Amino acid sequence: MSESNVSQTNIQDRKTGREELIVIKIGGNVIDNEAALRSFLKDFGSITAKKILVHGGGKIATSIGNKLGIESKYIDGRRITDDHTIDLVTMVYGGLINKKIVAALQMIHCNAIGVTGADANLVPAQKRPVKTIDYGWVGDIGSTNVEPHLWSLFLDNQIVPVLAPLTHDRQGHMLNTNADTMAAAVSIGLSTSYNVKLVYCFEKNGVLEDINDESSVIGKLDEKLYRQLKADQKLFAGILPKIDNAFDAIRSGVSEVIIGNSANLLQLLNGEKGTTLSV
Amino acid sequence: MSESNVSQTNIQDRKTGREELIVIKIGGNVIDNEAALRSFLKDFGSITAKKILVHGGGKIATSIGNKLGIESKYIDGRRITDDHTIDLVTMVYGGLINKKIVAALQMIHCNAIGVTGADANLVPAQKRPVKTIDYGWVGDIGSTNVEPHLWSLFLDNQIVPVLAPLTHDRQGHMLNTNADTMAAAVSIGLSTSYNVKLVYCFEKNGVLEDINDESSVIGKLDEKLYRQLKADQKLFAGILPKIDNAFDAIRSGVSEVIIGNSANLLQLLNGEKGTTLSV
Repeated sequence: MSESNVSQTNIQDRKTGREELIVIKIGGNVIDNEAALRSFLKDFGSITAKKILVHGGGKIATSIGNKLGIESKYIDGRRITDDHTIDLVTMVYGGLINKKIVAALQMIHCNAIGVTGADANLVPAQKRPVKTIDYGWVGDIGSTNVEPHLWSLFLDNQIVPVLAPLTHDRQGHMLNTNADTMAAAVSIGLSTSYNVKLVYCFEKNGVLEDINDESSVIGKLDEKLYRQLKADQKLFAGILPKIDNAFDAIRSGVSEVIIGNSANLLQLLNGEKGTTLSV
Repeated sequence: MSESNVSQTNIQDRKTGREELIVIKIGGNVIDNEAALRSFLKDFGSITAKKILVHGGGKIATSIGNKLGIESKYIDGRRITDDHTIDLVTMVYGGLINKKIVAALQMIHCNAIGVTGADANLVPAQKRPVKTIDYGWVGDIGSTNVEPHLWSLFLDNQIVPVLAPLTHDRQGHMLNTNADTMAAAVSIGLSTSYNVKLVYCFEKNGVLEDINDESSVIGKLDEKLYRQLKADQKLFAGILPKIDNAFDAIRSGVSEVIIGNSANLLQLLNGEKGTTLSV
């Protein structure tokens, strides 16, 4: 049985002609907790496939911003990024958090390189146009594609990119950018060269049928079931953009999207835990 | 005459079999002045040879540190780097300053990538041993060599590394590291693969015969003249480590070291301005 599975995987690989690439996104719940982060990075480092880590910001930007007298403003859950705030998040996301992760991975002999979307223009973006709300220095990735060539330079040389949620506008400004969106854009861009598995880690065990019951994980979620759960208002609002992003990514070439708890990374990858999405 | 020079250069290139690489270090006087930085980066971007930019810290770390209640302590001109200070400089050097430079270079179509010595382990280092003074989280590059292979990945793909003055200890900690030393270590490490020209930019026009006269630049400085000028106490103390580093670099394989004003970058490179050192 196990041998037969291995053979099937090999056939699959030969059929697509593409090597596996795992893109993993972590958020504030891991970043803000030193023990959780260390444990997660140990699991991440042990993955033998080609891999990319995308990290969010966490509460540390708000806490440092408070000390610097930079007030955090949000509209619809999105930070409004004024001149002071873009400097703050560039420091905290691109410097402090990114390099702490890099140093921790280097310690366990994972050859990480910390980058933003501005570095080597890895994730082209543009400043969000002002409509009813001026979000300030916020980046939209939109239809501009992520170019696989430069990413492959790293991946083919056993270098593991660690991507901070920042882009740039090609006009000399850094832009604050949603980490979920960045992970999806990178996964889609690289799906022409790799067989991409995208993993969204967060604080819950997966997409839950009952928000108050961590054991009610929906193991497999397709679009039909998703529409039904939404119609029945079974899903908590916070997860809807994550699921929408995930289905978009699959429709755009990503092989598989998994949503689950960062504490279970290896079990998410082997299908034992979390929610696996398909169209 | 001009044709003959070109031929000689070609013969020289064929003889060494190595392509030219220019490593340029800038300090606080450029970083702290937005107009000076923009002008410098324009010159830097126009260099057609392979190139690396190493930047220092500037006053901005001290100013942000003051707001965060992190006191700057120095012994013999070196910052003492405690737990709070390493976080501060990781944010400011590795995040804010590094990414501002990257975004500004991307604007002028120079494909910059911002890195620290921790990223892809580009500059291996170790924590400075505690003797009479405990410098804290400070990195020494020492005898560990910079590996040309990963740097060439960037350089051979028209990617321009922008290096922040930070390394790591392979134990999971970032280390504050002198930018002059990093520029020298990178130049020496890459001199086995490239014909390296190292340029130290600072606020003066070069090594001056009279510290109060910016026109008294010593165009060419060899070790014999250097010993004599030191014996005569003609040189100001601040420049001595820079010159010592420069001679070390030349003895270790770097082709040429130039010291001069960042405002004259292109004239430093063509020999019209600044001080050129040789052993």
